[in-house]
Amino acid sequence: MKHDNSYTGQDFKVIGTRVKRPDGIDKVTGRARYGADASLPGQLVGRVLRSPHAHARIKAIDISKAEALPGVKAVVTADDMPVPEGLSGDLKHTLENSMARGRALYDGHAVAAVAAIDAKTARKALQLIEVDYEPLPHVTDVDAAMQPDAPVIHDWLYTSGVDPKPEKPSNVAQRTEFGLGDIDAGFAEADVVIERSYKTEATHQGYIEPHACLANIRPDGSGELWVTTQGPFVYRNVCAQLLGMDIAKLKVTSSEIGGGFGGKTHVWAEPVALALSRKANRPVKLVMTREEVFRASGPTSSTSMDIKLGATRDGKLVAARAEMRYGNGAFPGIWGMLSCMTSFACYEIANCKAIGYDVVQNRPKVAAYRAPSAPMAAFGVESAMDELAAAIGMDPVEFRLKNASKEGGQSHYGPVWGPIGIRATLEAVRDHPHMKAPLGPNQGRGMACGFWFNIGGQTCSDLNVGIDGTVTLTVGTVDVGGSRASLGLIAAEELGIPYEQVQVNIADTGSLGHNDMTEGSRGTFSSGMAAIFAARNTIEVLRERAAKMWGIPVEDVIWEAGQAKAKGSEHSNLPPLSLKDIAAKSPKTGGPIAGHNEVVADGAGVSFASHICDIEVDPETGATKVLRYTVVQDAGKAIHPDYVEGQFQGGAAQGIGWALNEEYIYGEDGRLQNPGFLDYRMPVCSDLPFIDTKILEIPNPGHPYGVRGVGETSIVPPLAAIGNALSNAVGVRMHHVPMSPPRILKALREDRRANRGPAKVA
Amino acid sequence: MKHDNSYTGQDFKVIGTRVKRPDGIDKVTGRARYGADASLPGQLVGRVLRSPHAHARIKAIDISKAEALPGVKAVVTADDMPVPEGLSGDLKHTLENSMARGRALYDGHAVAAVAAIDAKTARKALQLIEVDYEPLPHVTDVDAAMQPDAPVIHDWLYTSGVDPKPEKPSNVAQRTEFGLGDIDAGFAEADVVIERSYKTEATHQGYIEPHACLANIRPDGSGELWVTTQGPFVYRNVCAQLLGMDIAKLKVTSSEIGGGFGGKTHVWAEPVALALSRKANRPVKLVMTREEVFRASGPTSSTSMDIKLGATRDGKLVAARAEMRYGNGAFPGIWGMLSCMTSFACYEIANCKAIGYDVVQNRPKVAAYRAPSAPMAAFGVESAMDELAAAIGMDPVEFRLKNASKEGGQSHYGPVWGPIGIRATLEAVRDHPHMKAPLGPNQGRGMACGFWFNIGGQTCSDLNVGIDGTVTLTVGTVDVGGSRASLGLIAAEELGIPYEQVQVNIADTGSLGHNDMTEGSRGTFSSGMAAIFAARNTIEVLRERAAKMWGIPVEDVIWEAGQAKAKGSEHSNLPPLSLKDIAAKSPKTGGPIAGHNEVVADGAGVSFASHICDIEVDPETGATKVLRYTVVQDAGKAIHPDYVEGQFQGGAAQGIGWALNEEYIYGEDGRLQNPGFLDYRMPVCSDLPFIDTKILEIPNPGHPYGVRGVGETSIVPPLAAIGNALSNAVGVRMHHVPMSPPRILKALREDRRANRGPAKVA
Repeated sequence: MKHDNSYTGQDFKVIGTRVKRPDGIDKVTGRARYGADASLPGQLVGRVLRSPHAHARIKAIDISKAEALPGVKAVVTADDMPVPEGLSGDLKHTLENSMARGRALYDGHAVAAVAAIDAKTARKALQLIEVDYEPLPHVTDVDAAMQPDAPVIHDWLYTSGVDPKPEKPSNVAQRTEFGLGDIDAGFAEADVVIERSYKTEATHQGYIEPHACLANIRPDGSGELWVTTQGPFVYRNVCAQLLGMDIAKLKVTSSEIGGGFGGKTHVWAEPVALALSRKANRPVKLVMTREEVFRASGPTSSTSMDIKLGATRDGKLVAARAEMRYGNGAFPGIWGMLSCMTSFACYEIANCKAIGYDVVQNRPKVAAYRAPSAPMAAFGVESAMDELAAAIGMDPVEFRLKNASKEGGQSHYGPVWGPIGIRATLEAVRDHPHMKAPLGPNQGRGMACGFWFNIGGQTCSDLNVGIDGTVTLTVGTVDVGGSRASLGLIAAEELGIPYEQVQVNIADTGSLGHNDMTEGSRGTFSSGMAAIFAARNTIEVLRERAAKMWGIPVEDVIWEAGQAKAKGSEHSNLPPLSLKDIAAKSPKTGGPIAGHNEVVADGAGVSFASHICDIEVDPETGATKVLRYTVVQDAGKAIHPDYVEGQFQGGAAQGIGWALNEEYIYGEDGRLQNPGFLDYRMPVCSDLPFIDTKILEIPNPGHPYGVRGVGETSIVPPLAAIGNALSNAVGVRMHHVPMSPPRILKALREDRRANRGPAKVA
Repeated sequence: MKHDNSYTGQDFKVIGTRVKRPDGIDKVTGRARYGADASLPGQLVGRVLRSPHAHARIKAIDISKAEALPGVKAVVTADDMPVPEGLSGDLKHTLENSMARGRALYDGHAVAAVAAIDAKTARKALQLIEVDYEPLPHVTDVDAAMQPDAPVIHDWLYTSGVDPKPEKPSNVAQRTEFGLGDIDAGFAEADVVIERSYKTEATHQGYIEPHACLANIRPDGSGELWVTTQGPFVYRNVCAQLLGMDIAKLKVTSSEIGGGFGGKTHVWAEPVALALSRKANRPVKLVMTREEVFRASGPTSSTSMDIKLGATRDGKLVAARAEMRYGNGAFPGIWGMLSCMTSFACYEIANCKAIGYDVVQNRPKVAAYRAPSAPMAAFGVESAMDELAAAIGMDPVEFRLKNASKEGGQSHYGPVWGPIGIRATLEAVRDHPHMKAPLGPNQGRGMACGFWFNIGGQTCSDLNVGIDGTVTLTVGTVDVGGSRASLGLIAAEELGIPYEQVQVNIADTGSLGHNDMTEGSRGTFSSGMAAIFAARNTIEVLRERAAKMWGIPVEDVIWEAGQAKAKGSEHSNLPPLSLKDIAAKSPKTGGPIAGHNEVVADGAGVSFASHICDIEVDPETGATKVLRYTVVQDAGKAIHPDYVEGQFQGGAAQGIGWALNEEYIYGEDGRLQNPGFLDYRMPVCSDLPFIDTKILEIPNPGHPYGVRGVGETSIVPPLAAIGNALSNAVGVRMHHVPMSPPRILKALREDRRANRGPAKVA
């Protein structure tokens, strides 16, 4: 049955209510099962040996002593993880990232691993592995990595996206460009031009739960993996391909997830655990330590940017240029490209050009982190927007409103805008009491905007009706932020039954068709669409069953408010049949009642946010305190407002941490100096004010209920909102994130004009 | 899409091949996970306190001392397992069987249970529970229970199926009658009549794996159960109803099963584990000891029968009467009814009457055991058949052949026979070399026939295609005897791909629609049908995708030998597309490829077997040795012949044990005297010869591949085949099963004519 994903504008009965979260009690009482909570009889403990060098040739690895240690059941190196035939591109890099092949490419790169009967034996075995390293020159800074004399990390890496093609390899993996019009003509038209450079340091998603998995490969080559992940189906596909297995022969079961934020969309040690299990012929549990998570999972890009904006005196943005250099860690990614695509989305700029560079460095392979690449680009663009507004003497909100993207307009990265919320969020910010609240000394207020695409993708859902009429909705998207409650509401709405009558389960990969990751804010959008379609298919079955029970044609049966009703006066003697009535008779009317759907969920709706931040700075110490914070975001239809607000708050909280304190600090030796929560400073509860939220619901025309994504956009504005607030608080314009106390103090001490300069007047 | 379940007589490519069993290595290396192998963090140990009385009023239970013991987290009694509103009939009895309510009804009946931090604490807590019992009169023998002066176990139990309705309660739960014609007229027509009485003792399925589960009920009332079971969906429905939960809120995951044979179709301690978890607010693992399995799970009926057969001198069976009294244990069942329905199925008897009585006793609630009730009835009928053949001087095989049921004939229990195999099995036995092999002194040969219905029922299957074209078939019927291999073969056959390209997974109840139990030999029949239909639905999707890839109408695409092919000369330029080709492009052609099916699998085919047995008896000791054993059975199409042969052998082995040694022995006090494998004598490997098998494949017209059930029929003939062999070996006719050495010795010593008597000549 074909279904239409168009928004219908229907009235809702349960959608939009704040029902109890199904995972709440388990999570607060400690009963929820996370990645490390899976156990199998006879399981071994896996541990990984990691490179202490930022870059080194591995001349030899002697595992004989480790293998000889009693209690050690397997030791693996890259030799035990051969590259399967045909493996290439990012998959091949992922394999090499999970276990170094000939060279260690960053501090923390895995070089060997052991599986032993207990943790003590495993640790001892690691000490017995002898690795003969030849240190090589390294580079960790993104700008340094682009220098002509930088050590070239991969001799096979030639910059793509440039013409002519480069003659020699470099650390620049690709150049990307998006834009509109003629920027030279645009800047010529501008009355005021602002040109600034910015830098941001790498941050980590900082999920509470470290990566953890339990791998069990059988002698026949089939196997299982229990793992904390944002996408068991993608993990299955990736791990199976890396290990040379058939996809159907690997069953992956996801646990509850203690945070992912993009960091659990990529595989890290999971292939190693599988290789250990394969070699040991026993189950292997592998849990990364926090240090390993920092050193060897995927942080964000460290970035360096040049932003140039031009406007006319009456506040029209006429030209924009951004050149953004994004570190990718040891293997090429698409992070610079994503920065290009998001950078100018909030604004209608006839002439703009965004150029992105993806640059490899001797750092861990960069991973997605909530709206990946967008917060840094927004930091640059939204900081410059404030300076430009000031230069032309316009209120920054009004300046943005005047130039905001609008429906029917051409985005700089491709699509023509449908109904979008940037203008509505700006108006809401302008009119918000927060904007008028008084400020004290050393306090400042800033605002900034943000954009994220949101995505759809491959999705499957099964809906099964129990004999008592209670409903099981099976989905394949991991619940990272409330999707079980939201999807339960959606199934209940569609069927016309109470939410409490629906149970949502996340399937393992052995029980459902492929689902893309829970990423790109697609969970509720995509699985919601599949759930609606599966429910509609179920209703067809329910109508057939009711028709059979009544002995009337199915065409005479309608489904309304959770009941089958017989149409027409000739059937007026037939009282409606509820879902429970029909379910109770199902064994006699054709058997189990179900609906299924497999879909590529097209029609994802973009999302915009505008944030307001008040900050106080201690000019003596550079210490900052966020006093008040307001998030306004277009969510499309908010299925479960609590969760939407939670996402808004969570994104803002992470953005605040990123803006003010979090950073990867590398030493001269190329080693990470702060791989732990004592030295990597994340905000704790007392660092944050209550984060106020305002949900705007501009329906997405590409979803039956008008759903957009909500999870990512809220992390995009905070870096710039805080930078703008700081500037307003103490008069220093920060160009380097995190805007940590030492950096603020330095800026306060230095000549304030040094990196500001007057706006260039054309 | 509607599907036709008719047999098509197609040629097979992979069906019938003996591919490797997917669970083999795990099972022989100990890696397979059984019921007790599930673990959760924080789990408690559950233990059950059981009645030492055969029948007693529970005047009071004091759990206070047990509750006060440090480490005890919950103590439950019937008070913690209230009867949910509306619960009645067998479900209510199941609840009371799992935990005594006011009275203990048999030795071993649960009266309380504890959950504690470890086994030692749990055991100690059991000792601290004080139960004040008032012993009541008891009855364990089925004939004694039917006497007018027998203690009446349930004051609410009035015999059903009798006219007039009884005025007072008794232990006879129901009387059932099936038959044809006029038996008085029939016996009047007979030249020779044999009338005998038989008794059989209760046996246990004797599965290696005791009942084990891990229950986890959350504070919101939802929960999970990991359990060894033949049917997670039925366990879900039953447990949810007993605990007053919504069905969708309980997720049941089945483990590998270490044997079930019907005994894991009923719930035993699982509701108790769930109640403990609910009260303790923690996961509870409950594993029954072997003693508990014997005392408090479900053995077969103990029976008592009167069989009367009449034939003409030329060997025509003209009349038959059977009165069969089946013990049900403490709660009423349908076991006597099943004996009626199976008793005369092998033969065409114009005048026959089978009467069954279901009788309650102070014994554990009787459970299904492989072809439940049929082996005992067959023991009576097939023993009498041999005597009757001898009396009229006919070869017992020829006598049976002359009277065998045939296609188009009217069965005594209802259906008109379709194509059936009783005649073919008898002919195969007649012509088998085994029948002509020489015998030594004290050796005898016997044969007997058996029948089982086989069933269909509610079944669901999902088939999902991975991006690499490997296939996941998800089914909900527990694999008790090879269904994963068989279903993988079926999916491969239907799709036209190699078996190795298919992975079969057993779903938990959160991921698939309802499936009835793996019972009634329905696993491969029903899930095979659902798999075929799911595969056919998948092929429709594959055709659509191929059409899309080619840009041609779907009508022009056929699926043949695992490939999409474009019909017609205008498409001769299009090379075929394999499943892998189409799968690789699926993200671009519509997303994940799947097929689903929910079906009430109608059309189950009955199955008949004829067995030959050679036995040697030591006349000094009564010891027996089975020298040779041959099973001939109609399997319908044998999907995986190894497994079919294994089922034949397994059924025969269990039947041999039942025939010769196994029995529940109750003392005068009504307590089970042999609840362990030392005193309950099961055959071990050295007790058995290699069991030879011959598969007959008479296609079942009600299944696309002609599949019947194969698992149960093979346990039906052995009791009688051995009795007949014994009679031929040493000249004593045994009327009491098990035919154990003491009983044989007694029979040899006694006047051989005592219970034989001459055939009555009309």
